[in-house]
Amino acid sequence: MKMLKNYLKTKRELVDSNIEYHLNKLEYPNVIAEGMRYSVLNGGKRLRPILLLMVLELFDKKIDLGLPIAVAIEMIHSYSLVHDDLPALDNDDYRRGKLTTHKKFGEAEAILIGDALLTHSFSVITDETKGVASDKLVKIIGMVSRYAGINGMIGGQTVDIESEKKKVSLETLKYIHENKTGKLIKLPVEIGAIISEATEEEYKALENYADGIGLAFQIKDDILDIEGDFEKIGKPIGSDLELEKTTYPSIFGIEKSKEILKEVISDAKRSLNIFPDEKIKVFLELADYIGIREN
Amino acid sequence: MKMLKNYLKTKRELVDSNIEYHLNKLEYPNVIAEGMRYSVLNGGKRLRPILLLMVLELFDKKIDLGLPIAVAIEMIHSYSLVHDDLPALDNDDYRRGKLTTHKKFGEAEAILIGDALLTHSFSVITDETKGVASDKLVKIIGMVSRYAGINGMIGGQTVDIESEKKKVSLETLKYIHENKTGKLIKLPVEIGAIISEATEEEYKALENYADGIGLAFQIKDDILDIEGDFEKIGKPIGSDLELEKTTYPSIFGIEKSKEILKEVISDAKRSLNIFPDEKIKVFLELADYIGIREN
Repeated sequence: MKMLKNYLKTKRELVDSNIEYHLNKLEYPNVIAEGMRYSVLNGGKRLRPILLLMVLELFDKKIDLGLPIAVAIEMIHSYSLVHDDLPALDNDDYRRGKLTTHKKFGEAEAILIGDALLTHSFSVITDETKGVASDKLVKIIGMVSRYAGINGMIGGQTVDIESEKKKVSLETLKYIHENKTGKLIKLPVEIGAIISEATEEEYKALENYADGIGLAFQIKDDILDIEGDFEKIGKPIGSDLELEKTTYPSIFGIEKSKEILKEVISDAKRSLNIFPDEKIKVFLELADYIGIREN
Repeated sequence: MKMLKNYLKTKRELVDSNIEYHLNKLEYPNVIAEGMRYSVLNGGKRLRPILLLMVLELFDKKIDLGLPIAVAIEMIHSYSLVHDDLPALDNDDYRRGKLTTHKKFGEAEAILIGDALLTHSFSVITDETKGVASDKLVKIIGMVSRYAGINGMIGGQTVDIESEKKKVSLETLKYIHENKTGKLIKLPVEIGAIISEATEEEYKALENYADGIGLAFQIKDDILDIEGDFEKIGKPIGSDLELEKTTYPSIFGIEKSKEILKEVISDAKRSLNIFPDEKIKVFLELADYIGIREN
């Protein structure tokens, strides 16, 4: 894990400095510019942008090709958290131990800050990406929009909200996982494959890997909500239970959920076996890490 | 005006049928798909999409080239109204005599419906536009994002909110007008010019026209808020006064504001005099119409 942790730290610093670079260009209105920076520069793990960079490295491509897109995806992830935290939605006061955006800047402002992050992400892609052909870029922008929209992240968020306080089927739970969190994890992996001109087989392998770690991430989240440590997670334990949410543990029980998690992770790892071992070390370690992470 | 009214009606029907076509493809989650349709298919004037089509016709281009982008711009306009109407922002219950989106679907849903419209607009551009080269499309998408974002519409909305209940300078008022409403009126005009490969001179002329009618639209709005007819406008009169908003009439008085409106409209018309008269009839009539409209 030491290799992985160093790798993630280096890449996280690179992503953070790029996020700062792009957001520091924004000045006025101050509350929106500040709010955008506050909402994105919050100590996040940067899993999504790093996945894009990992895929580019897998194909020996320069990571500069994908950095603006990676930053844009993190902006979209951040906007979704800003809106999710609003009083009308999850009504959360804290995220990662800091005040949520609406608590810090006001509710109207948080709505507009989220809107601004989502909107701005597209011009970061179009204006800052260098070295990717326009036809690829159009394809990538379409994918960003679809994966983040009604047939992706927003669809998942909506069904998640509609499913509170009621029992839902495993099928519905899978829809929520695949869309609310899954799509924005697949997105950078697939974009990395598009930029790198992966073969169909390679693309499919990476897509399966991304599906697997996305699901693992979510099952682990459900488990941490029961067995986690408040200090490490930075949010209250047991909120799923309180909201009577359907989760993997609520359907399968905690022990069976842990078994499923292990299987999902080992399937994700196996899907990459078409690549040379020495090229996919970090992918394999990341998959394992998702299963043992404590926050 | 009869020619103009017929023209606008024909184009509005074309735009509406295209909006329906694109939004009817969306099904699940039903509340988001329904909410998106409800929020966009609301009897709007479709000024923004029609402007794009007008510019394409000015250059004898097929309007099909710009229809998906025109629809996308209307989706962005609609999302901004959905979020603007929210309790944390303007807290409006009615728009054009119908319940606002959050009153009809709930507040959390309205936030997500707005997000979905904004997000989806980009895939309508990328996936549905035919016959526009990819490099142009990338340029257009960047422009959409900039004009709708922090340095455009969202910037204007923010400063507008911050300026309630206080006197602001003419400079600030101009910033609000240019960004909150102006940018989304310039956007389709400039995109039409890009698709049509307008010369620099033609582009500039159209930009000036769009700036003019955008400002005229806003000054007329301010005047209607004082002298308008509730039945025709479909919203309460005097809301600017109630919010102590700075407007053209509050700075210049109503008579002087009417004079400025006339000047702005005649300047807008004059800026198009590089084009043959018979090509710009509808542009000139539209400019006049903005000055005399009652809603």
